[in-house]
Amino acid sequence: MSVFETEKMVDLTVDEVFALSRRVLSGAGLSAPHAEAVARVITAGERDECASHGLYRLPGCVATIQSGKLSLDAEPAIRDVSPALVRADARHAYSLLAFERAAPLLVEKARAVGVAALVINNCFHFSALWPEIERLTEMGVAAMAMTPSHAWVAPAGGTKGLLGTNPIAFGWPRPGGHPYVFDFATSAVARGDMSLHDIAGKPIPEGWGLDEAGLPTTDARAALDGAMLTFGGHKGSALSTMIELMAGPLIGDLTSRESMAFDDGAKAAPMHGELILAFDPVVMGGEDVNVNAARAEALFAAFGEQGARLPSQRRYEARTRSLERGMRTPKVLYDQIIALGF
Amino acid sequence: MSVFETEKMVDLTVDEVFALSRRVLSGAGLSAPHAEAVARVITAGERDECASHGLYRLPGCVATIQSGKLSLDAEPAIRDVSPALVRADARHAYSLLAFERAAPLLVEKARAVGVAALVINNCFHFSALWPEIERLTEMGVAAMAMTPSHAWVAPAGGTKGLLGTNPIAFGWPRPGGHPYVFDFATSAVARGDMSLHDIAGKPIPEGWGLDEAGLPTTDARAALDGAMLTFGGHKGSALSTMIELMAGPLIGDLTSRESMAFDDGAKAAPMHGELILAFDPVVMGGEDVNVNAARAEALFAAFGEQGARLPSQRRYEARTRSLERGMRTPKVLYDQIIALGF
Repeated sequence: MSVFETEKMVDLTVDEVFALSRRVLSGAGLSAPHAEAVARVITAGERDECASHGLYRLPGCVATIQSGKLSLDAEPAIRDVSPALVRADARHAYSLLAFERAAPLLVEKARAVGVAALVINNCFHFSALWPEIERLTEMGVAAMAMTPSHAWVAPAGGTKGLLGTNPIAFGWPRPGGHPYVFDFATSAVARGDMSLHDIAGKPIPEGWGLDEAGLPTTDARAALDGAMLTFGGHKGSALSTMIELMAGPLIGDLTSRESMAFDDGAKAAPMHGELILAFDPVVMGGEDVNVNAARAEALFAAFGEQGARLPSQRRYEARTRSLERGMRTPKVLYDQIIALGF
Repeated sequence: MSVFETEKMVDLTVDEVFALSRRVLSGAGLSAPHAEAVARVITAGERDECASHGLYRLPGCVATIQSGKLSLDAEPAIRDVSPALVRADARHAYSLLAFERAAPLLVEKARAVGVAALVINNCFHFSALWPEIERLTEMGVAAMAMTPSHAWVAPAGGTKGLLGTNPIAFGWPRPGGHPYVFDFATSAVARGDMSLHDIAGKPIPEGWGLDEAGLPTTDARAALDGAMLTFGGHKGSALSTMIELMAGPLIGDLTSRESMAFDDGAKAAPMHGELILAFDPVVMGGEDVNVNAARAEALFAAFGEQGARLPSQRRYEARTRSLERGMRTPKVLYDQIIALGF
């Protein structure tokens, strides 16, 4: 926010961000349930000052909608597969409505048997995983989510894009407070960060990417044309491979390479699967649910005692500010969205 | 191996390693089922040239046995909690027998409902997680395992030990070949590696640890007395925290800090819980199980095409050598084990 002068900003409330998003998405062609599901997540991103998952996403959504590959109105087909498994076929629409429709059944199953999985198939990826994780923690379960993307990332020791940016997110419900939530790409940085460096003509740090010859580069454009690297060396690469397997072949859906082939240069959002696991602390923890919750709280308190922050703290602080005072969005972005004409 | 001269090595077959391990463990007081379960894992470590999880462990095991905190003969209590959950109370004995006794039921549940969890409570930690993961992949399921340890590791932005070295392991079954398996500590290095640097008087790289004042150090002793760091910065720290929560409070067991307090300076192996998840590719993947297996194989093949190695390749190569030609163990270690007098 600090890089923009005040006159170059537009003041918006949370409700206005939602209304604008829904109008654009509906105008571009999404059915009302899909437009609302996507608008809710864009609003959450803008509200939490995750700019890259807020209004900034709208032009890209419109491009994906206009790519012709996305279903604009498919009702997700939810299947109750087993006492521990729900399968939601998004039928080539955005993932969010499938998640919303299936989440209550996932939580019901976790509460009954301890651990349960929600498999979302044939969905176009939208946005971050943390809004889904937060939703599940609000229902009282711990949750983990992962999804592949496009084959932009080289495995450790490799030279070419093969793995996705493969995000993993996790959440833990906390009585009377915001949940513990993290959500990160297993690539060294998000692809969007790499693009921002390219646009700004700024060099990237070593360890972010390789050029087309497979050599380390500090040139963002060269790395975008070459391959990104994972965070954390061979450990990050192993974790990314796990996500590729678990949210791809395990659940009967595409790997990042297959998803990229499906896209075939359209540059739409990745179409693939998503795996979400939910864990009920009562069933998993045995009888002492309050003792166990207190154990977790003691852990979180110890972070604070030594000056370490929990992963989503900055986001929650932004949320408080946004709900109290509204948000400021760059006028250039606002104008770009209005110019879409919806 | 290369640092030792031939006359300082002892040749052993796989069977001899097992017999020696079992003899020492039984002699030190473990009941036959426990001694055999631990000896099997020590033999697997030695066979795969994971020296730090092979015969090297025996003196430490004897120390843990003699600490008086470990049950030498408890039969694990296995409870069939739900269609997706098995709980194994190790009753303060080593975890391995509890795992062996409960694993078939875990796999049976995963096959029936898609995903299932095995919670092991009140166990003394032994060795790496990969032998358990391999065992599960042999039964045809994908699997994930995690456990806390002792509070040696500072969270990102912190200065003091709070998290454990918190390993995570994952495996994927491969038709007709060794499974895809990784197993790594979420600390920047294993604590044993830090100790080896201390013993050798070698400096440690930056990023491994902090001194008692919370400042970065390259002195191994200072970092052992201070705090270790996680791999991968704030992402590794978040992952380690997830493991702490999932294999601690979620399953009704101790955090790394509580486990360290339980140890109370005895320097025995960590006593705590372990969480193991199993996923059945048939139920989770829908109908096209062969298509899904082929997707994973295409991913693995693409690693090889660009010169990247899969995580356990070196271990499998060592296994082939050991089974064909036997193993060479440092005479100094062998003599130390014999001198234990069992």
